[in-house]
Amino acid sequence: MPLTLSALNEASDSEFVAALGAIFEHAPWVAEAAAQRRPFASVEALFAAMRAAVEAADEAHRLALLTGHPELAGRAARAGRIAADSVAEQASAGLDRLSDAEYARFEAMNARYRETFRIPFILCVKRHGRASLLRNFEKRLASSPEIERRAAEVEVMRIAAIRLNALVEGEGSLKTTGRISTHVLDTTRGKPAAGVELELHEIISPTETMLIAKAVTNSDGRTDAPLIGGRPVPIATYELRFALGDHYRRLGLDLPEPPFLDVVPLRFGVSDPEGHFHVPLVATPWSYQTYRGS
Amino acid sequence: MPLTLSALNEASDSEFVAALGAIFEHAPWVAEAAAQRRPFASVEALFAAMRAAVEAADEAHRLALLTGHPELAGRAARAGRIAADSVAEQASAGLDRLSDAEYARFEAMNARYRETFRIPFILCVKRHGRASLLRNFEKRLASSPEIERRAAEVEVMRIAAIRLNALVEGEGSLKTTGRISTHVLDTTRGKPAAGVELELHEIISPTETMLIAKAVTNSDGRTDAPLIGGRPVPIATYELRFALGDHYRRLGLDLPEPPFLDVVPLRFGVSDPEGHFHVPLVATPWSYQTYRGS
Amino acid sequence: MPLTLSALNEASDSEFVAALGAIFEHAPWVAEAAAQRRPFASVEALFAAMRAAVEAADEAHRLALLTGHPELAGRAARAGRIAADSVAEQASAGLDRLSDAEYARFEAMNARYRETFRIPFILCVKRHGRASLLRNFEKRLASSPEIERRAAEVEVMRIAAIRLNALVEGEGSLKTTGRISTHVLDTTRGKPAAGVELELHEIISPTETMLIAKAVTNSDGRTDAPLIGGRPVPIATYELRFALGDHYRRLGLDLPEPPFLDVVPLRFGVSDPEGHFHVPLVATPWSYQTYRGS
Amino acid sequence: MPLTLSALNEASDSEFVAALGAIFEHAPWVAEAAAQRRPFASVEALFAAMRAAVEAADEAHRLALLTGHPELAGRAARAGRIAADSVAEQASAGLDRLSDAEYARFEAMNARYRETFRIPFILCVKRHGRASLLRNFEKRLASSPEIERRAAEVEVMRIAAIRLNALVEGEGSLKTTGRISTHVLDTTRGKPAAGVELELHEIISPTETMLIAKAVTNSDGRTDAPLIGGRPVPIATYELRFALGDHYRRLGLDLPEPPFLDVVPLRFGVSDPEGHFHVPLVATPWSYQTYRGS
Repeated sequence: MPLTLSALNEASDSEFVAALGAIFEHAPWVAEAAAQRRPFASVEALFAAMRAAVEAADEAHRLALLTGHPELAGRAARAGRIAADSVAEQASAGLDRLSDAEYARFEAMNARYRETFRIPFILCVKRHGRASLLRNFEKRLASSPEIERRAAEVEVMRIAAIRLNALVEGEGSLKTTGRISTHVLDTTRGKPAAGVELELHEIISPTETMLIAKAVTNSDGRTDAPLIGGRPVPIATYELRFALGDHYRRLGLDLPEPPFLDVVPLRFGVSDPEGHFHVPLVATPWSYQTYRGS
Repeated sequence: MPLTLSALNEASDSEFVAALGAIFEHAPWVAEAAAQRRPFASVEALFAAMRAAVEAADEAHRLALLTGHPELAGRAARAGRIAADSVAEQASAGLDRLSDAEYARFEAMNARYRETFRIPFILCVKRHGRASLLRNFEKRLASSPEIERRAAEVEVMRIAAIRLNALVEGEGSLKTTGRISTHVLDTTRGKPAAGVELELHEIISPTETMLIAKAVTNSDGRTDAPLIGGRPVPIATYELRFALGDHYRRLGLDLPEPPFLDVVPLRFGVSDPEGHFHVPLVATPWSYQTYRGS
Repeated sequence: MPLTLSALNEASDSEFVAALGAIFEHAPWVAEAAAQRRPFASVEALFAAMRAAVEAADEAHRLALLTGHPELAGRAARAGRIAADSVAEQASAGLDRLSDAEYARFEAMNARYRETFRIPFILCVKRHGRASLLRNFEKRLASSPEIERRAAEVEVMRIAAIRLNALVEGEGSLKTTGRISTHVLDTTRGKPAAGVELELHEIISPTETMLIAKAVTNSDGRTDAPLIGGRPVPIATYELRFALGDHYRRLGLDLPEPPFLDVVPLRFGVSDPEGHFHVPLVATPWSYQTYRGS
Repeated sequence: MPLTLSALNEASDSEFVAALGAIFEHAPWVAEAAAQRRPFASVEALFAAMRAAVEAADEAHRLALLTGHPELAGRAARAGRIAADSVAEQASAGLDRLSDAEYARFEAMNARYRETFRIPFILCVKRHGRASLLRNFEKRLASSPEIERRAAEVEVMRIAAIRLNALVEGEGSLKTTGRISTHVLDTTRGKPAAGVELELHEIISPTETMLIAKAVTNSDGRTDAPLIGGRPVPIATYELRFALGDHYRRLGLDLPEPPFLDVVPLRFGVSDPEGHFHVPLVATPWSYQTYRGS
């Protein structure tokens, strides 16, 4: 049950801190400071107050905000000593299902990073697919302390913003969500293609994909809900797969065996987790096209 | 070194039969009969004479033409007791690289077919990918003796036609070849896309593909040679993969990471081994389309 | 100022008839009958009551409903003896701006129709462009009295529905409107094309077009309002013209002179006045496409 | 009857000059000089010799080459005092069919140009449509004597090259021709669209077009000959018009009236007279696209 902004505005200080104390991991003092600035007209204003509390804090507190953060796929996570939100976030990127070799690789990178920069490696994992996460980790290992200190603070803010948005309902939400959507048009008939089965997969590696969503197009050729929506779209490569051959067979067309087009894959990359990726399919049994739409 | 038609026209009878005796497996009498009809003005006329010899033969000879044919992936093949052409043909469909389980499956189907129809299962394997071959086998097992007798003769003629075409050079070739070709157009610049790396894969199963050809587009956006040409295109599902992202990076475009389009897959089915499947890619960094061209 | 349904429900009988008496031309008795069925929950229910009143009327009244209707571009119209709505409707089809020859042609067709069928030629002109109107007139002149009697009644109902919808605001509007809309996508950048000037023309004849609407695309590549909306789309051929060359020049692209694409015309026909015709332009400086979208 | 290069190589000097003396207007001395350099292995080599003769000439001769050139739509042309080739060239641009007002405009521009630069305005008219010709004239009137002297010599060479190519047949032709071609693909059936009637028009002004070519697509969806070929493509805006609605009606499709797509116009600009402009139409009854192909 989401909290409402007005309930937070009217709560006691301790209720407020109980509700929002975990937005910044192991740092309830951020919520305590924000509580004094009430009332808030929007979720954005609430978040701005929390950010201001962080920026006004002394170096020891600011550093603790980083050092208190759990490592990705680290020992604390394995041992169950991290916050509930962190557990869910790491699971969303599959970090709770690593093989022993993968786990060892993360251990080594975490150790190298901590040794080099004196803070844990912090990344808002909800914004990254597996390959992007590793690419990012490699790149940041080669960075400088100043840049990493700033990068870690940016990521902590991103994590906090997503948590806050998920928790509090109200006017003026933060922009923490992106979208993948599609639309299937049948240009042999000049109409939306209804009833087309489709799947969205994330491309994990050249030989491994992960099913993210399944849907069937409605009478307008769209899916009732976005394929990804209400959350950041992890930076990754995706593939939409449309059962176009089945669609035309249902319409009674006499297709060859195998048909020229049967399952149509559209492969595309997402680089902006807060962007809208509209990827339509305009098709006949013998042609198709796609483009980044809007 | 291919034979020329004129050399065959001038050869002695025994030379002629030595050259063409294996076109119909274990049936040099077909070449013997055709030798008497020389000279031939075209490869087509030569083949017509061989076909006429078969059609004029008595039932015993016609039946022997079928029973003498090796089974697919059968014992004779394994034991090396089949004609050189058959060895190569079966290898082209991967029948020389079966697992023990697959081999056992073929054994069982071959046995069931021979028991039911009193002839071996004959299929021109050069016209089929693995899935099509199995689909065909299953379907023909459920057929009738009359239909199978005719089907076997049709396939024997197809096999012979491909062998003859490969062996004899001359005017009036038989139509035994199909083609897969492509063309890459870059509509951000209104020009052919040169230097694009691409691969053609055959889709063996949902998890297995086989690389058929690699190429790089020339200055006209085409490949110097067709991706498949000079032979039948096996009935199968294929995927063309274009390194479009690399192309635009080479042109100096500032693409996001990952780019919206990087490796573009075009998946299509071939149902007609003697057809021309022209599958172009008309693209920008943010859109593409394909169609069956000509 | 539109009437509200609730105001009509509460009005006196004479106020009600004063408001709706002209929905059916020269036939206030239809409104009088409907007034007794109040209250109405929707505009649709109100219209159903008016239609029921017509259907319950005796032959003399029903015939009068047709004979009382003004001819298209007829003498009554010229002499200013027709209802205000009829004046506006005929003007929308350009019937108030006919040349003498065209006027004479209508006169002749009107006379022939009235002589043949004993009723005036009735057509809901808001649903037809000039060519469609004439094509329809010719076709109906060759029809039979029974068919024409029914056709005239259908058209009277269409005219009344449009008038009623324009007059009364409320829940449950009648479906009397169609739409032409567009969307411009720039696939060199994977974004909507903003600031593109465009025009919608009706094709009157091979040498004559009429400007219907001008617009500029907004940041989403769409026009702020549909190019035609809130009324039926006259059955006609249209042409959208996009200043695509100007768009790319503004973006700083180095185009040849003349550019490959400058003003892009999309020509399309509308056969269904109540339909939605979405006609997008997906373009680069060297390519474009359109389709009937949704 | 075209001359062959070998006939020219073997001709007497006077025959050679008789044949090629008019390639450079009123300047047979160019051919005389080239005659001494025979034999020529290619048309290109012959032209290079003529160009070298011009470049080796003294200033008086080089200037005479320009001053001897007839003006566009000038008095000499009207009075029939220009070379046969010039007559045909000017007619190809419609300069023999000017209205009196247009003629007067050319007179005025010619006079202004000659007064400013002391040479006649020279332009290879076969490379320009009407609008381009006038745009060019205006622009060059504002130029400098040095630039105009060079521009005039470039144009004289272009004129000579086209004349030479038209006259002499042989290996190694000069690149003086461009091409407009098309290809119609029907993606409802995955096949070339055969039997489609089409027209190529040049856009003269917003209200005036000129029919350049009519054709019907063959079984490969192409026209038997390019729509413009074997000559430069005049710099201009063109419109291809395809009778797509008729095509689908012939195939028995049940289209609305009017159909969504009936006559499809593709409007495009040609900026490079020696370029190949391939403008395909990939269509269904409800969609189409085009691009600059190759």
